[in-house]
Parts: sequence; structure tokens; C-alpha cells
Amino acid sequence: MAELSGNCLIGQSGGPTAVINASVAGVVAEALNHSCIEEVYGALSGMQGILNEDLIDLAAESQQAIRGLRFTPGAALGSCRLKLKKPADFERVLAVFKAHNIRYFFYIGDHDSQDTAARISALAREQGYELRVIGIPKSIENDLGATDHCPGYGSAVKYIGATVRELAVDADAMGQGDLVTVVEVMGRNAGWLAAGATLAKRRDHPNDPPHLIYVPEVAFSNDKFLDDVRRILKREKHCVAVVGEGLVDKDGNYVAVESSGTDASQLGGVGEYLKDLVEGQVAGAKVRVARLGVAQRAAAHLGAKTDVDEAFLVGQAAVRAAVNGETDKLVTLVRGDGEQYTCETGLSALADVATSIKRLPPEWVNEDGVSMNFQFYRYATPLIQGEVSVPYVDGLPAYTRLHRESVDKTLPAHEG
Amino acid sequence: MAELSGNCLIGQSGGPTAVINASVAGVVAEALNHSCIEEVYGALSGMQGILNEDLIDLAAESQQAIRGLRFTPGAALGSCRLKLKKPADFERVLAVFKAHNIRYFFYIGDHDSQDTAARISALAREQGYELRVIGIPKSIENDLGATDHCPGYGSAVKYIGATVRELAVDADAMGQGDLVTVVEVMGRNAGWLAAGATLAKRRDHPNDPPHLIYVPEVAFSNDKFLDDVRRILKREKHCVAVVGEGLVDKDGNYVAVESSGTDASQLGGVGEYLKDLVEGQVAGAKVRVARLGVAQRAAAHLGAKTDVDEAFLVGQAAVRAAVNGETDKLVTLVRGDGEQYTCETGLSALADVATSIKRLPPEWVNEDGVSMNFQFYRYATPLIQGEVSVPYVDGLPAYTRLHRESVDKTLPAHEG
Repeated sequence: MAELSGNCLIGQSGGPTAVINASVAGVVAEALNHSCIEEVYGALSGMQGILNEDLIDLAAESQQAIRGLRFTPGAALGSCRLKLKKPADFERVLAVFKAHNIRYFFYIGDHDSQDTAARISALAREQGYELRVIGIPKSIENDLGATDHCPGYGSAVKYIGATVRELAVDADAMGQGDLVTVVEVMGRNAGWLAAGATLAKRRDHPNDPPHLIYVPEVAFSNDKFLDDVRRILKREKHCVAVVGEGLVDKDGNYVAVESSGTDASQLGGVGEYLKDLVEGQVAGAKVRVARLGVAQRAAAHLGAKTDVDEAFLVGQAAVRAAVNGETDKLVTLVRGDGEQYTCETGLSALADVATSIKRLPPEWVNEDGVSMNFQFYRYATPLIQGEVSVPYVDGLPAYTRLHRESVDKTLPAHEG
Repeated sequence: MAELSGNCLIGQSGGPTAVINASVAGVVAEALNHSCIEEVYGALSGMQGILNEDLIDLAAESQQAIRGLRFTPGAALGSCRLKLKKPADFERVLAVFKAHNIRYFFYIGDHDSQDTAARISALAREQGYELRVIGIPKSIENDLGATDHCPGYGSAVKYIGATVRELAVDADAMGQGDLVTVVEVMGRNAGWLAAGATLAKRRDHPNDPPHLIYVPEVAFSNDKFLDDVRRILKREKHCVAVVGEGLVDKDGNYVAVESSGTDASQLGGVGEYLKDLVEGQVAGAKVRVARLGVAQRAAAHLGAKTDVDEAFLVGQAAVRAAVNGETDKLVTLVRGDGEQYTCETGLSALADVATSIKRLPPEWVNEDGVSMNFQFYRYATPLIQGEVSVPYVDGLPAYTRLHRESVDKTLPAHEG
């Protein structure tokens, strides 16, 4: 195979994670090892930046800045939720690639983003423009099919686990058999994050909070929920329930949307819905709702070292694969078979990413429908291990900002 | 002064803080130094536990457990929001004290709790029962009058500052001049917590997020708020506004309650109110609400070492004061006059605590009404310094639970 010389471009897409920048750092660090990669560019705000020819020179950043990306949340290059549809937009992307001799394209994102990357690659092939496209996975929701788990998930679960433990300790101090804490976590399609909250229980303490966990993979019933809450309040001073935002009933309808027609569903999501339900039906119960929100994907001060390291690793692996001639692949994480957790990278077809959604295996949920069994623990426990050493300045975590030196534009402005 | 021999009792009251248990550790550690203190008891759930004669033997706890209290959130003894009113209840408290030869009573709490402690002391004096009562301050809201600041405040601000910084980095990655993040923090009467969010700005970067801070001490106006948001969205890719839950308009009415009659005010508080306002009035704007909730007082993994150390110190100081013959006093924190931050403890009259509410000095807010000046920075910056070394087990912070060995009851059950 002939060596392909040219420039590389990195983009970030979709919701950030605590470790999406660690993958950028992995790409940049590995690119330095390969002389066939001449310039290392970043796209500002993903596809939006490519369309606008808003590229920055990542090789001009200091090594401290690249190192700092390992523990910096957000998307240092900017991100977007833009889904390219018009053929003219794909043509424009390729024109920008040609104008800047982009021969390696690394796109960090999940389903739709990788679909876009695959289409760009197909168009390049059609036009006889040699381009290697490698997708890099990221998702706190952990629902990409081809990979054992997604970078970003471990840190999100570590944050959720620590927060649930802290909220529970507070509730334990205040409850007298009457206090219910509803913790609403992300996960519109899959229950990986809600299930991850189970790690807040101490080993061999199944009655520890969170007492109840509801995932979208198990049909939700108001009556069973109320029975569960009553049972826990009888046993404990307080009840902690963790709910995925995407809970559905036995007919597959979102639970929070059941109350549509009132203001409640627009405002509050499933947490507020359940608060109303409990306060209306369980005499004397007080409900606190904690909607963890964006902090789940941004709390890098509580990142899992395992997750950070793997996010860096998939960035490195993407470069190595591309330099070795691979294209149209997603880098995956492949777990070893041994008792001790090990993980290496693999490759999977990029075209399959968009359509392959991985849900929590229902057999990992206990028969009670509200707790996880040993299979989930075996899966998730290794992913939250290790603490990161975020530097603190003046008492707060000091995160890195890129200098963002612009690459000169050579094309006429994009007409969107 | 004759030495007073007998047992001591510690209670916790009101909402927990990240460091309220550090004060318990300080009392227990110091009590060991004084032979006149014979037994060291804890009251389960504050006054509720005293009424019920639910006492535990803190001297039976391991030293590791007492050490662990330094960084454990919640209230390890349990807390309550019970406000004693009936004379019979005060009589009952004193009967329990007499039954267990309690001669030293240390109560950790804020306004109402210290008022209760003062009344118990007065009743004891009336009945000729020698008792020394010392209050220990705690409040994340920082609104106790006699003390420079309250244990619990520094850690809450550290959590708020780090979280605002992380939410802002995420929003910066996603915003295109259209994204507004409203962060709702606690503080029903005073703006100390909201103001504290300003520490998320880097030194000498006044345009850093949070771009807008609204405190209850400055009258809130919808029109000015909308103008502020529009101005920031024009200048930045996104806007972060931090709001205290207790915002009031120029007539002194709570802002969120302005929308009463609709479901919104019941459900959402001021954050949801402002979301509706912005989305209704600012074309194209999208609003994310982050209501930080109980995590503000429970996120001990992000505790400020300065705060933890001072919380321990006020516990120690309470014991020393009582042994030296003081009673009816609140331990206070007294800041040194020098350039370098120093802090020692003082004593203040317990009877004054309930009526003395400290608000943010309006002259610490800049003329724009949405940012803090150097006086606030000088005040707050030292309070969030230093990181705690919380032990991690299996990837999550490992908090301490007390063994809670019960003290035998000697009285008939309380008839509440």
C-alpha cells in the first residue's frame, strides 16, 4: 500500500462528554509520530466549521494545552448537532477537504455523526479523491452497538454514582420514613446511565441507596412504582429512586408524556412527573427531584481515569488505523476475556454505526425490575475506576482553552 | 470557677452541609482532652432524638470513624427541622439531660436551632441545673450575623464554582449566540451563594462565565434581565446566568411567585420561570436550567480544605469554651486584619443568633447589578481554598457511617 501524505482534520460532534477532548489529545499526540501527516487541523464546531472553512491549526497549540485536554470537559473544538442532508453540503465539505489537502479525517461522535462521516467518505471515493475516514466513538449514553462501551460513559457513571451517594447521605439525615429522592439521569433510549447508579451501593449492601432503579428497557408502571416506594419507606428512613429520562410504559409510550395537555410534562420531565405522582398518592411523602442534567457529561473533576485513558487510546488508534490504510471504520473498545479487566481497540464498519443501538440487556436487571445483577456489576465496575489529577488554581479546577490559530481560508464563503 | 464534671451531648440540626460532621469530629476529638467530660453522647436527629431519649455513645466509635467524619457529608447523627414550642417539650429535654447527667450541650445549627439551645439553657438556669450550652454555626447560606462566615459556605461555593465552570465549558461548545444556561442556587434570604459563583471566572477575565449573577439583595426586573441576556448573547456564543432562589422584585415579592396561578411556579422555581421568560421573549434563544439542589450542601468530594478545617476548629473551640466556664455562646469565625487570610474563633451571645441575619452588602455588587467587585473576591476567595483527600473505594468516594451504639433509656417514652 502506498503511503498517503497530506493533512489531517479532527472534528467533534454531538453532546460533549467529560473525555471527548482526551480523544482529540490522542489523535494529536499520535499524529506527531507519522511523517505522512503533515498538518494537524481542527474543525470549529464540527460540520458547521467545515462548511464555513473554519479550521484551526492544532500543531500550533502548546504541548501543555494538548496535555490539558485530557481532563478538560466540553468540546475544545466546539461541537454541533448539525445533520447534513443536502447533496450540496456534502460537495462543500469535500471542496474544503480538497482545498486544504485533508487526507485523514477523524470524527468524534455517535450515531448520526458517524453516518455523516461515512457519506463524506463515499462521496470522496466517487470523485476519486483519496481520503481516509475513521470514526471515534463518544457517548455518555453508551448506546453505540459495535463497541463494548463508549468513552464518556465511565466518567458519567462515576459522577452519577458519587452524586447519588451524596444525595442519599443527606436524605438519610433528614428522612423519617417520609422522604423520597427522585434522581433523573440522561438516557433517552437506553438505561445504561440509570443502571450505573447501582454502583453507589457498597459491595454486599443490596439495601443501600439507590433503593430503586428504573430503566427504559423495563416497562414502567405507576402502580408498581408507588408500591415500590411504599415498601422502601416502610423499611428505610428515606427512599432514593433513580430514573432514566426515557422511561416508557408497557405500550412503549414515554411516561412523562402521559401527562401531556398539562404544563407539567413540558416543564419537568419524568422526575417532576413522579414527584406529583408520589405526593398525590403516598400520604405524608415529601419528594425531592434532582435532575442531574448537563453536569453528567461535564463533571471532569470527577472523571474516571480508566475512561480518560481509553478516550485517549481510541484517538491514538484512529490515527494508526488510518496511516495503515484503513478507512470507513469506527474505532471500538474490545474487552478482554480474563477475570482481570483489560481493554484494547478494534475496528468496525462505519456504515453500521447509525443503525446499531445497544440497549441494556434485560437479563442484567433483577426480577424485581429495580436492581441490577452481577452481570451489570461485572460490566460497569471496571469502567469507573481511578481518579484524575485535575490541577486546581485558586481553589477551582483549571481547564484548558485552545489558542485557536485560524487556518487561512481559500474558498468563497459557504452559502448555507 | 469550679470544674463542672459530667457528660456531653452533641446534636445536629437543620439542613446538612458538606462539613457539619467535621464539627462533630472537632467536638469529639477535643472532648478527649478534658477529664471533666465523662461520656460523649450524640443525639439522633437533633431535638427529635433528645425528646425520644435516642442517644448514642460517641466514645464507642472507632477513631477511624471519627476521622472519617471530617469529609463525610450529610449529618452523621441525623438532623431535623423540629422547632420546639410547647413548654412541656422543653421540660422533657431537660429531664433527658438530667437523666443522663448532661452538663455540656453542643448544638450545631443556624438561627432557629440556636434559639432553641438558648431557651433550653434558660430553663436549666431557672431550675438550678448547671448546664453549659455552646452553639456551633453551620450554614451553606452564610447568613448568620455574628460570624465572619459560616462553616459549610466555602465548600458549597467551591462546588457551585466548579459546576458553573463545567456547565459553561459545555455550553461554550454548543452555543452559537443562542444558548442560555440558568443556574439556580440556594439562598432564600441572602445572595452569598449566587455571588460565590463569580469565583468561576478566571482572575482578570471579567467576561468569563458566569456572565450574569442575580442576588436577592438587588431588586430583580424582567426587562433588565432580558436586556442583560440579549447583550451577552450578542457578545458571546452563550450566556450563563446564576440566580439565587430567593430573587425578589422592587416591591419585595418573590420573582417566581409572580407567575402564581399557573403550574409553572409550583413546579419550577425561579430557574424555570426565567426559562419561560427568555424563550418567550428572546427570539431563537434556547434555555437550559440547572437547579443545583441538595448537591450544593452534600458534594463533600469537592469540599474546601479551608472550610473543613474551620468546621473542625469551631467544634474544638466549643468544647474549650464550655470547659472554661462559658455558656449561652455561639462560636464564631473571626477573620484577621492582615493581607494574608487568617481566621480564629470567637464567642458571641447565643440569644442574638436567631434575630441576626446577614445579607450580602449591596456595595459589593457592581453598578451593573450582575457582577461582584473586589470586596466580594477578597471576602470569598480564601474560603474555597484547598482540596480534601476523600478516600475512594471501587471508584467512588467512601463515606463514613457511625456504628451508633445506643445509650440505655431510663425515662418513660415521650408523649409528643
